[in-house]
Amino acid sequence: MDSGRENSVESGVGLHDENIITSEDEELSVGGIFENEEVPSWTKQLTIRAFVVSFVLSAMLCFIVLKLYFSLGIIPPMNVAAGLLGFFFVKTWTKTLEKAGILKQALTRQEVTVIQTCVIASTGIAFSGGFGSYLFGMSERVANQAAEAKYELDYKNPALGWVIGFLFLTSFLGLFSVVPLRKLMIIDLKLVYPSGTTTAYFINSFHALGGAKLAKKQVREFGKFFSFSFLWGFFQWFFTAGDDCGFSKFPTFGLKAYKYTFFFDFSALNVGVGMICPHIVNISFLLGGILSWGILRPLIETRKGDWYSADLEPHNFQGLYGYMVFIGISMFLGDGLYNFFKVLSRTLAGLYYKILCRNTNMQIPVVGNSSPVRKSLSYDDRHCTEVFLKDQIPTWFAVGGYFALAAVSTAILPHIFHQLKWYYIIVIYIFAPSLAFCNAYGCGLTDCSFASNYGKLAVFTIGAWAGASHGGILAGLAACGVLLNIVSTASDLMQDFKTGYLTLASPCSMFVSQVIGTAMGCVISPCVFWIFYKAFSDLGLPTSEYPVPLATVSYNMAKLGVEGLSALPTGCLKLCYGFFAASILINLTRDALGKKRSWFIPIPMAMAVPFFLGSQIAIDMCVGSLIIYVWQKKNKANADAFGPAVATGLICGDGMWTLPKCILALVGVKPPICMMFISRATYNKLD
Amino acid sequence: MDSGRENSVESGVGLHDENIITSEDEELSVGGIFENEEVPSWTKQLTIRAFVVSFVLSAMLCFIVLKLYFSLGIIPPMNVAAGLLGFFFVKTWTKTLEKAGILKQALTRQEVTVIQTCVIASTGIAFSGGFGSYLFGMSERVANQAAEAKYELDYKNPALGWVIGFLFLTSFLGLFSVVPLRKLMIIDLKLVYPSGTTTAYFINSFHALGGAKLAKKQVREFGKFFSFSFLWGFFQWFFTAGDDCGFSKFPTFGLKAYKYTFFFDFSALNVGVGMICPHIVNISFLLGGILSWGILRPLIETRKGDWYSADLEPHNFQGLYGYMVFIGISMFLGDGLYNFFKVLSRTLAGLYYKILCRNTNMQIPVVGNSSPVRKSLSYDDRHCTEVFLKDQIPTWFAVGGYFALAAVSTAILPHIFHQLKWYYIIVIYIFAPSLAFCNAYGCGLTDCSFASNYGKLAVFTIGAWAGASHGGILAGLAACGVLLNIVSTASDLMQDFKTGYLTLASPCSMFVSQVIGTAMGCVISPCVFWIFYKAFSDLGLPTSEYPVPLATVSYNMAKLGVEGLSALPTGCLKLCYGFFAASILINLTRDALGKKRSWFIPIPMAMAVPFFLGSQIAIDMCVGSLIIYVWQKKNKANADAFGPAVATGLICGDGMWTLPKCILALVGVKPPICMMFISRATYNKLD
Repeated sequence: MDSGRENSVESGVGLHDENIITSEDEELSVGGIFENEEVPSWTKQLTIRAFVVSFVLSAMLCFIVLKLYFSLGIIPPMNVAAGLLGFFFVKTWTKTLEKAGILKQALTRQEVTVIQTCVIASTGIAFSGGFGSYLFGMSERVANQAAEAKYELDYKNPALGWVIGFLFLTSFLGLFSVVPLRKLMIIDLKLVYPSGTTTAYFINSFHALGGAKLAKKQVREFGKFFSFSFLWGFFQWFFTAGDDCGFSKFPTFGLKAYKYTFFFDFSALNVGVGMICPHIVNISFLLGGILSWGILRPLIETRKGDWYSADLEPHNFQGLYGYMVFIGISMFLGDGLYNFFKVLSRTLAGLYYKILCRNTNMQIPVVGNSSPVRKSLSYDDRHCTEVFLKDQIPTWFAVGGYFALAAVSTAILPHIFHQLKWYYIIVIYIFAPSLAFCNAYGCGLTDCSFASNYGKLAVFTIGAWAGASHGGILAGLAACGVLLNIVSTASDLMQDFKTGYLTLASPCSMFVSQVIGTAMGCVISPCVFWIFYKAFSDLGLPTSEYPVPLATVSYNMAKLGVEGLSALPTGCLKLCYGFFAASILINLTRDALGKKRSWFIPIPMAMAVPFFLGSQIAIDMCVGSLIIYVWQKKNKANADAFGPAVATGLICGDGMWTLPKCILALVGVKPPICMMFISRATYNKLD
Repeated sequence: MDSGRENSVESGVGLHDENIITSEDEELSVGGIFENEEVPSWTKQLTIRAFVVSFVLSAMLCFIVLKLYFSLGIIPPMNVAAGLLGFFFVKTWTKTLEKAGILKQALTRQEVTVIQTCVIASTGIAFSGGFGSYLFGMSERVANQAAEAKYELDYKNPALGWVIGFLFLTSFLGLFSVVPLRKLMIIDLKLVYPSGTTTAYFINSFHALGGAKLAKKQVREFGKFFSFSFLWGFFQWFFTAGDDCGFSKFPTFGLKAYKYTFFFDFSALNVGVGMICPHIVNISFLLGGILSWGILRPLIETRKGDWYSADLEPHNFQGLYGYMVFIGISMFLGDGLYNFFKVLSRTLAGLYYKILCRNTNMQIPVVGNSSPVRKSLSYDDRHCTEVFLKDQIPTWFAVGGYFALAAVSTAILPHIFHQLKWYYIIVIYIFAPSLAFCNAYGCGLTDCSFASNYGKLAVFTIGAWAGASHGGILAGLAACGVLLNIVSTASDLMQDFKTGYLTLASPCSMFVSQVIGTAMGCVISPCVFWIFYKAFSDLGLPTSEYPVPLATVSYNMAKLGVEGLSALPTGCLKLCYGFFAASILINLTRDALGKKRSWFIPIPMAMAVPFFLGSQIAIDMCVGSLIIYVWQKKNKANADAFGPAVATGLICGDGMWTLPKCILALVGVKPPICMMFISRATYNKLD
């Protein structure tokens, strides 16, 4: 899923999907399985059942994505979940119809691709809509945490109406901006798009001999752990009558360690995420946790009353919490900037190199470890190209669409955000297509969408332009949203074109499916967000189950950009400089050593996450890592085939439990029991 | 282990061991594996290393047995644990010596038999010493629960000195009483002794080709789950800072269900016990739990203030608790008496039949499902007989020993228990040999030792003879102890003779080993008991972690025998009659339907246990049953081979954790955290 890819940038985690399905493409190295397959026309690829299934799946996954976004701030790749669930849904559908004798059309690969595209586009909006970052960062709740909002213009609370409008105005521009470039990128430049390619292989494998059998087994494992995780979430719920209650407050390693967030919180979701993430990511989390909560925090605590006032509330930005957040942000920025410039330079260099040797058909210098994918590039190539070029989307349509949409949104957006002047928007729209192209190209090479980093660019430039007294914070955040939406959907679309190319789905059907999916997402995501927002009144507060860490980060970045660095507490700025530099240094070392020899070097962006969220997440994720490690030691083939299914089962089960949990919270049903942990001294007092 | 066998009577559970090792004897149907084996002389079978290992194992298992006895009141067969651990210990020992180059003597089957015998004899004392029943039932703590002790003579608190003396005086008589009969029982009557036989097969399998490999795998599984269970116990400990704290108070099914003891208490020990017990036993427990705590208790509660006073303490025998205990006792008695008379009549009939056809060598009518054992009876028969008859224990020695011991103990016992007059003791010693023979014979047929039932006989007869005003309760309990010790060790010895017969161990070495083991047990068990007694000051109280249910039962039986039925609360007697009758009826139905068709009929004695202990035990055990059931469905061979190893691992791990826990309690280290469960209303009040 694209949000996964994009978010991997947001947190710098680099969750490459391709290693997940490596076991599958073994089976597909056999060429010409589909030689005699008849490819349906593009209008026939767009079936009603495909969109119905997509809608249901989108709604389901949106809950999961937003839950992850709100609680962790990182979103692991959900391709496996989307693929397995899509396959399962449609197979059940067609089987049922077949038994009833009213099946008119068998399921085709192209149809599955349409579903996949639609679901990915739709859930992509849950990410690029910024519900867990810039959009929610505009709200009063987040702004109030940082300091009293100095000007009334400095926050804008979310409301269903304007959020949906905003998304519709900004989410389609990206699609139109890169459509004309699809032949260049897919056929001429032969970009890899690892995620898109693996998704295609996943879909092809379902329809290949033997693939369906494996898929069925995977679905069974997925189902088992989905149910387990769902029921476990349900069980946990009963014991959360109060804020200090439940398994998520379990002082596994004692009360002292708990105080410094070192405990295992029994979250099946986090363990599942840890099972999917590469070991180094989990270890980076743990190192970050030890660094922040194990070392830095106790050290800074000794300066209480000296560096910061002793009588501040625990989550005041002028106190301990401020140190943690700003140091985390500095690591984020260090890693993000380093990678932004690295990819930008590589993109430009690669482009230059490509244009030079366009007709010599040389091997592309692929960035990122996409080797398992590269080897299959020759697969049925000509046939794919032929199908890909058959249906054309006229360029005038794309260009016209872009201009029309840009005009409409330039007219309407300033009415939503008074701080965002129309000329800011025009400037953004002038630069957007080239940035969208950059991102789509970089993504094709590295599988990393750097949309969030382009977003940060907008935060700082537009924010500074507007200035603090004219609502610069809000203008910056809004501009971030506009640019992020364009850039992010552009790379999504190109990934889908690659998937379509490999599954012989028409670009037209891909485009239409992406448009419909995006439209779905523009409605579904805000609604799901709204449910969370209404069900959990503490959403976004640091003590909440859903602290929405990246919203705080976004807001404070915007604030920094607008107000400068003077607002930080004593000594914080020096620490920030140090960690910013360390972050870049680590990256330099990483690149200097090369991919293979740098496996033990942690990822600064992953290390930064526990600064905001605490170490318990790192511990959960390391448990997941440990499970996969032991499993691989015991039976590698088995672990590789079923590990991702089990992990996504755990993630989706817990994520899906959020839906009934929201409903229970909305209708006012509260859990009956409180599982509390108190020290012996407190217990004796209570008695 | 004998305590397992005997206790299976105490609770009527009938935990037949033979099905545990069924998978083993497949490998042993090959005759003559040991044809060329040289049998060492009996003095060489008794090595120092064997007794060192036995001592360590005895101490370990004693903790486990007493923990089970105190917390559950039932003790499942520990043969597998003793066998595996013994094998593991001695193998490690010899391997180490071998590597050091100083191994003088390889490990023989006979030596393992000696260890097994010694360990079983020693831990047998933990059962027959009555620490969980009659002996602790004499204490002030138990007596005070029932009512104020009317006369000062009505209790005797345990003290290390007199307990060890008492055990030494009574535990060896049984051995001497049946020694002369060994040829009659083993060779002439060819009694089966299922437990003894399976133990022998277990030992033989270790030394057969392939057997050692399986044993090693089993030891590994055992070790894995032993560690898990031990660490789990350790982990749980941290959260038990107060009486209402910890996993054992986890309201898994809600607070309402918890009030009626319906919850899963996360005890690895109980789950392990459930995995070993036959399904019907676990289901009987559950039915008993539902009947007692789910139906009877709420019904009787409606009579509060009418049948019983509303302002009684929760565990007063005149209140609700009294109803539960006495109804439970009536089921115990009904089942016990029925089976006592059944086995007595069968024993006498069988004996008569045997003597009639002594020389015709007809097939013995075996009671109990000992079919997997029976088929291998012909195995190397002549050779075994030859070895068995080689070493002789002179009859004059046995008879002389019995009379000497009887004289000494008649002289000393009245000094320990003033209420137990010397003439009571002489009467007991006159009848004891015949009862010991009856029990040993019955045990050979059915694998059930009915020692506890003979003990009950002594409670009622001697108690009534002494009368309430002359300390009849204590006299009855002490008499129970004397008789129980004789009868129980007698059947143990005969089981061991059978094991020795099949492993070519000499009767002399068996006898010596049993004597040494018994002597060890007479010291180890009281010491371990003493540790529990000192470490847990609430041992024996109904609210304690160790309620010692059978001590309460013993005391109240003795009280009933002495004082009559008038002391019961209103309506209780009628209920007791009803359940007594039901208990006999269920048994009659069971026997009328026959072994095969009565598989679904519950066992009244198992149903009675939750009356004292609550349903959580039944739930734990059913979880164990479920695990085995699912495991067998998935892979029967695997489950049969490793299920018992896993189960005993769980039991022994949790049991062994009791040792450090006792030590922590003794040195005053208290757990740091309390995991509490409170309702939302209470939580809101606390806030």
